[in-house]
Amino acid sequence: MISEDRMITLDEKFRALETENAPGQEIRQEIGDLNAIMRGDKFDGIPLDFSHGDVDAFPPTPGSSEAWKYGFERGGQQAYTEYRGAAQIREGLAERLGAFTGKPVSADSELIITPGTQGALFLALGATVTVGTKVAVVEPDYFANRKLVKFFGGEIAPIPLHYQGSLSDNGPDLNRLEAAFKSGTKVFVFSTPNNPTGLVYSGSSIAAISELAAIHNVTVIVDQLYSRMLYSGEVYTHLRACDIQPKNLVTIMGPSKTESLSGFRLGAAFGTSSLIDRMERLQAIVSLRAAGYNQAALDTWFLEPSGWMDKRILEHEAIRDELLTIFRAAAFLTATPQAGSYLFPQLPPLSVEQNTFIQLLRHQAGVTVTPGTEFGPGLSDSIRLNFSQDRAVAVAAAERIVKMVEVYRK
Amino acid sequence: MISEDRMITLDEKFRALETENAPGQEIRQEIGDLNAIMRGDKFDGIPLDFSHGDVDAFPPTPGSSEAWKYGFERGGQQAYTEYRGAAQIREGLAERLGAFTGKPVSADSELIITPGTQGALFLALGATVTVGTKVAVVEPDYFANRKLVKFFGGEIAPIPLHYQGSLSDNGPDLNRLEAAFKSGTKVFVFSTPNNPTGLVYSGSSIAAISELAAIHNVTVIVDQLYSRMLYSGEVYTHLRACDIQPKNLVTIMGPSKTESLSGFRLGAAFGTSSLIDRMERLQAIVSLRAAGYNQAALDTWFLEPSGWMDKRILEHEAIRDELLTIFRAAAFLTATPQAGSYLFPQLPPLSVEQNTFIQLLRHQAGVTVTPGTEFGPGLSDSIRLNFSQDRAVAVAAAERIVKMVEVYRK
Repeated sequence: MISEDRMITLDEKFRALETENAPGQEIRQEIGDLNAIMRGDKFDGIPLDFSHGDVDAFPPTPGSSEAWKYGFERGGQQAYTEYRGAAQIREGLAERLGAFTGKPVSADSELIITPGTQGALFLALGATVTVGTKVAVVEPDYFANRKLVKFFGGEIAPIPLHYQGSLSDNGPDLNRLEAAFKSGTKVFVFSTPNNPTGLVYSGSSIAAISELAAIHNVTVIVDQLYSRMLYSGEVYTHLRACDIQPKNLVTIMGPSKTESLSGFRLGAAFGTSSLIDRMERLQAIVSLRAAGYNQAALDTWFLEPSGWMDKRILEHEAIRDELLTIFRAAAFLTATPQAGSYLFPQLPPLSVEQNTFIQLLRHQAGVTVTPGTEFGPGLSDSIRLNFSQDRAVAVAAAERIVKMVEVYRK
Repeated sequence: MISEDRMITLDEKFRALETENAPGQEIRQEIGDLNAIMRGDKFDGIPLDFSHGDVDAFPPTPGSSEAWKYGFERGGQQAYTEYRGAAQIREGLAERLGAFTGKPVSADSELIITPGTQGALFLALGATVTVGTKVAVVEPDYFANRKLVKFFGGEIAPIPLHYQGSLSDNGPDLNRLEAAFKSGTKVFVFSTPNNPTGLVYSGSSIAAISELAAIHNVTVIVDQLYSRMLYSGEVYTHLRACDIQPKNLVTIMGPSKTESLSGFRLGAAFGTSSLIDRMERLQAIVSLRAAGYNQAALDTWFLEPSGWMDKRILEHEAIRDELLTIFRAAAFLTATPQAGSYLFPQLPPLSVEQNTFIQLLRHQAGVTVTPGTEFGPGLSDSIRLNFSQDRAVAVAAAERIVKMVEVYRK
């Protein structure tokens, strides 16, 4: 017998899935009378949505649209692929993912193509979490991780991430992680680079996680979505290439972000074949497969024109540095993103609630950001920005954020 | 307290999701030594896969590829839509779906665009079924319905469908349905036209279902995927336009089949706004949204060139009639599909198991079909064919099925 309190009702389940403040959904918010609390006039400036990257400023990989068209013209065999994705696309992709992550991937048994990395995360957690499963979740981390665990009925063991200290101090709290692993945690899910802070887990953290998971037989799901956009001087460690490996490991990547292929909804999960099998079975009832023609765009992934990725990284690094300068000049504590395009500044105490400030920011200053509370409880003083934006527009918008903070400072 | 036996383990959960015999997955089967049991030689003839429609024989809606390209060129606003789909696409679509089904649809609150109708079904059941929820499921019906209920921890109340009798005798067993509704059923999911038999629920059946659901406060999820491909002389009744309405109703459609847009993975669910809200929240953690650029292809839906749909229906009706003639001449009991492109012949007793026969059919005769057992327990004598195929190739393949039955008849 298990107690009723471990069961959640549908109402509770869907309260936990609240999307009102989720990035991109701001348009559905019912805004109260902001004019009544707004101080001063609206700001001039080009509106900017920092909730996701701007694929107009950083367009999709060259050739991706042509690859889609080629897929369309291939007809039936591309429309109806295996649920795990077209075999000939998986073959090339497995080779390139193996080379990138430092360990071979079997195209036949260790790789599944999914509708975005969100799709991959859903399948990975669906394949490993059920009612009562204890799951270690980093705070802060990608907001869907917590929601997914709750949806499947799992229990969250929170693992603090230190991200505002020196490089050597930063990283997950490994003592807390070990304690969680010792007390029945079955699954550990995390992102590196971390979303929302841009922290890249160090080689020693990754090795420790891999070894702890091996010892305590914990399944590891590592979201490496932004691992290609690595800034100068940074080093990235792939958990799947560590010497000591957990028995069950799934790595998740996708071309949505750095490569701006979000409009294609493509992701990839690779790792332990028994988990990939389960993920495919689940995909069969969730959405069958990533859209067939779209899968063809993966033929451009890791095969971008020479120099294209380097240029993209340099451009993002320049924007990162400008925004860091602006926020630090205003004394917002802001960690330096080592990879990816998220920035997570901590704001000083304000005279209005975080969500009110964020709505005012949108209404008065034309700037959309995502509240820190989406990434972990207690982060009501931080906001997340995706700085994959037009440089000049982003700089002006960051300056408006600073001005807004001045207006509403406590 | 609830008993442990209502909890299912992950192993059980995924056993219930077995996809080995699912349509399109045959390529992953490990075939034993079929040569040892094969009688006679392989048959000549063009191989045919009846497990799904052939989008080469019946290509996608004219303009769909151009619509995709137009979406791609619209850039960011099309790549990142609301989770429920792009507002301006929903607007036109809601109007057309309202006109088709005989009752207005609110684009803002009553419609969600999903990755295929499979995506819509997943979201609809995920929004209404949790551990212990009793769900009425028709037998035979689309194989994923049962799997979805099991995945979410629900309990199945089977409702027999009569489909081999006269038109007036055919339909769901309404007494069984009422009994299930009276004994705690919370959700009823079914497809009309029925997959796999092609039976269209009569106006009186639909009215009775709608009224019973209203009286017993049962949520109804009706999958109308094939409702546009209605053969001559047939009448289709939309449940959502009935006089007496259940409080909670979701209708599911999509352009994957009749319009051959499967490679785009697009579906639509419309109905009770509180359920659409839940479905959107779930979509946010499942795959965020239907691929942004692909959504643009919905602008061609219900706006096909004049005469295009009529021609497509006539061509399918001709294939249907030829296959019915072939199977009936061989004395296979086969209901006449009133809509859609599925045919569900019942084979005479064979000397080999159903799955063996189906593997032999593929190996020896080059014909792929889906076992009846995917659609309900006890249907081990029936096979499903999707006859949306090249006419001549389909006729020759149907004749090979008849020959194979002769060879392996008990």
